[in-house]
Amino acid sequence: MSVTDFTALTSTLTSWSDSPARLASARSDRSGWVAEGTPAIIVEATSVSEVQATVAFAAKHRIAIVTRGGATALTGAASAGERAIVLDLSRLDRILEIRVDDQVAVVEPGVITADLDRAARESGLFFAPDPGSVAISTVGGNIGTNAGGLRGAKYGVTRDAVLELDVVLADGSLVTVGHSTAKGVSGYDLASLFVGSEGTLGVVVRAVVRLLPVPAGLATVSASFPSIEAAAEAATAIGRAGLRPTMLEIIDGPTLKAIDEAFGSSLRGHGEALLIAQTDGLGAALEATAVANAIAPLATNVEIATDPATGSDLVEARRRALPAIERLGRVLIEDIAVPRSRLAEIIRTVQGISGDFGVPIFVFAHAGDGNVHPIILLEGVEAGEPIPANARAAADAIFAAALELGGTLTGEHGIGALKRDWIGRELGEKVHDLQKGIKLLLDPHGILNPGKAL
Amino acid sequence: MSVTDFTALTSTLTSWSDSPARLASARSDRSGWVAEGTPAIIVEATSVSEVQATVAFAAKHRIAIVTRGGATALTGAASAGERAIVLDLSRLDRILEIRVDDQVAVVEPGVITADLDRAARESGLFFAPDPGSVAISTVGGNIGTNAGGLRGAKYGVTRDAVLELDVVLADGSLVTVGHSTAKGVSGYDLASLFVGSEGTLGVVVRAVVRLLPVPAGLATVSASFPSIEAAAEAATAIGRAGLRPTMLEIIDGPTLKAIDEAFGSSLRGHGEALLIAQTDGLGAALEATAVANAIAPLATNVEIATDPATGSDLVEARRRALPAIERLGRVLIEDIAVPRSRLAEIIRTVQGISGDFGVPIFVFAHAGDGNVHPIILLEGVEAGEPIPANARAAADAIFAAALELGGTLTGEHGIGALKRDWIGRELGEKVHDLQKGIKLLLDPHGILNPGKAL
Repeated sequence: MSVTDFTALTSTLTSWSDSPARLASARSDRSGWVAEGTPAIIVEATSVSEVQATVAFAAKHRIAIVTRGGATALTGAASAGERAIVLDLSRLDRILEIRVDDQVAVVEPGVITADLDRAARESGLFFAPDPGSVAISTVGGNIGTNAGGLRGAKYGVTRDAVLELDVVLADGSLVTVGHSTAKGVSGYDLASLFVGSEGTLGVVVRAVVRLLPVPAGLATVSASFPSIEAAAEAATAIGRAGLRPTMLEIIDGPTLKAIDEAFGSSLRGHGEALLIAQTDGLGAALEATAVANAIAPLATNVEIATDPATGSDLVEARRRALPAIERLGRVLIEDIAVPRSRLAEIIRTVQGISGDFGVPIFVFAHAGDGNVHPIILLEGVEAGEPIPANARAAADAIFAAALELGGTLTGEHGIGALKRDWIGRELGEKVHDLQKGIKLLLDPHGILNPGKAL
Repeated sequence: MSVTDFTALTSTLTSWSDSPARLASARSDRSGWVAEGTPAIIVEATSVSEVQATVAFAAKHRIAIVTRGGATALTGAASAGERAIVLDLSRLDRILEIRVDDQVAVVEPGVITADLDRAARESGLFFAPDPGSVAISTVGGNIGTNAGGLRGAKYGVTRDAVLELDVVLADGSLVTVGHSTAKGVSGYDLASLFVGSEGTLGVVVRAVVRLLPVPAGLATVSASFPSIEAAAEAATAIGRAGLRPTMLEIIDGPTLKAIDEAFGSSLRGHGEALLIAQTDGLGAALEATAVANAIAPLATNVEIATDPATGSDLVEARRRALPAIERLGRVLIEDIAVPRSRLAEIIRTVQGISGDFGVPIFVFAHAGDGNVHPIILLEGVEAGEPIPANARAAADAIFAAALELGGTLTGEHGIGALKRDWIGRELGEKVHDLQKGIKLLLDPHGILNPGKAL
């Protein structure tokens, strides 16, 4: 293999690194999956033109380019392998504009999601996408994976918040796609095509995103149930009652036990499953009462909070779920989605798979979206070590069950490297080929995050 | 030109027509634009396999195929020209399933939009997209144009309601794209690519669409203002107050005058502009009061209705706008969108263009989306006659003004045939080429609604 001389590129850059420690760290992301080989260089882009120069250089020399921000991908999507250029956009972190009356923000991709939300709130607005990683993920990364989050039950996913994107294409050219207006139907929806494409179609260097007015009220309901079936039935009852919570989360018994052990709470004493709902707007308190009424016949315990502090305490159980499990060892964070009505069925199936394969699996879910996160505990397996066969088999069984129930491999995390073996099975050959055709059209030399997503 | 023998196709079909009157009528849609030449045949598809056979036949013989439903396109998108096959999907009009607990409907493309909404409401759900043509347009047509509507201020556009599509591709094959779950990020977002593609990328033969719970309350505010600037400022004040109406419509003075003359009302007596807002949910009445409070300092008259009948009366002014203008003669219905904060500016500009070019132009707008409908009155011009030069020049000036203000040629109606001269100007050459590349990938022989959209 020939060694590329990067001088022609690095001489034009403000900042880059080939520190062995940093290159080694770029082989992985938050998934723990480690790419084969070691990348060649990390470009720390400080301008759009540096991104363009980097992509053009990669195109000329046919070098893989892996774009990273917070590297919070849970799928290996941000992991860079042998000879690759790591294009780090975390320094492109400016909020360029918040147009209050247009209810949009113009941001660079490296902006931390929570920072954008915080800045918007100073103007009475907020940024709806709130993935679990909100404090460390970037808006560019949210766009790359079409990230969801807790507020998704009412406010949707990142795609719903993206209006217009500036994208550096695989030849280094810069285009603007989408519309900076609230609506627009001129031309095919290329903005939605780039959202969720995991850096395989282009590099997003600027985004116009939708902001929403901060709702006047917020109320919270937390309820315990004797079984996961009862909790799922309660989630359904909320929809049947015509209610639309902002957040509707479900946590299973094993996870409640882990939380209790980690934080000294006594959640599992109230039941085998917990449901947490939040409502917002001027009718928030009324709607929370209606939620409580709808689920009361099924619950063993119901609490309502109309003050933000108590509400935040009730939601804390959900926030503690992943840390409580991670305290027990390395985890594989899964992310299937099923039709809402199959929620209890899929959770029971996952609990069965846990028994069948002898691996502990904890489950919490965005019940409002049917988006289930089975967390597979890899007991005694260190970071970087291969995932044991029984855990892999359990994950495979979970994917198969999701597809079986009319669901999908991934609700909000993406395919990355880890689920590639499965994507063809979900899409079918014809659609998979169509997707590959689009990839080939936009990235004819296959330099953009090769080996990911498709 | 060779004459195609359609026997091989028609012998496989349940129903088709080559009646000269019907073929002539298929040359046009609700835009009044008439395609060159006359189509060859109308296929009245009664099954997906008939659609596949028709597209495969068209592909084999390289014949243009124009898919139609309600033919309510306002752009010529549904107009069929010389030798074309008209693929009429209006008989594929079944609601296949309403899955109440999943909050989705599975429909054929020929379902009338209002029929779907009505059926959903029987289960406590509703279909959010509500274009003006809701009583005569089809869900397939809504998908083809990514139709918006009055509820768009809160509930978005058709794309936000589309989860999964069955699409017949240009070779006659059938694929499923998107996810029938509430969320899903496996693969590129092909469903969004087909939404708004105006029948140029494939033929949608089945859709899984999102339904929402019918909100418990509904309240309406109607307010008059001394000027369009004051009304637009009031729309902005509503956003600044953290409120999110379902509907936020603005009507200008000339349109109010036309409504008064047609229906004997006295709207213009209260002011030069009217703003109508609706709020929904358990806090609807509270939110309507907050809306009224936010706009009161700017208004000359404010009415609030918390009962549905009075609310419906207040909204009636908006529903009467287009009929009142159409009573005066043939119209050209335009559809630009601008950033919300530029609403007053664009309406004033349009009013100026009306004077400059000596053509009456009426304006109403979805103020919550910055989506403005200038209605150009073609006095004395009969249906089918060419649009006079001054009206065309006025339309061109309106498009230029929209782009100048950072807006778009079309917020919700699409490009069709009528705005094709402008699309390249909005997109720029590079993005236009990218769009053409996608068209070529999906429709290599250019048989799907050629000469439209791009």
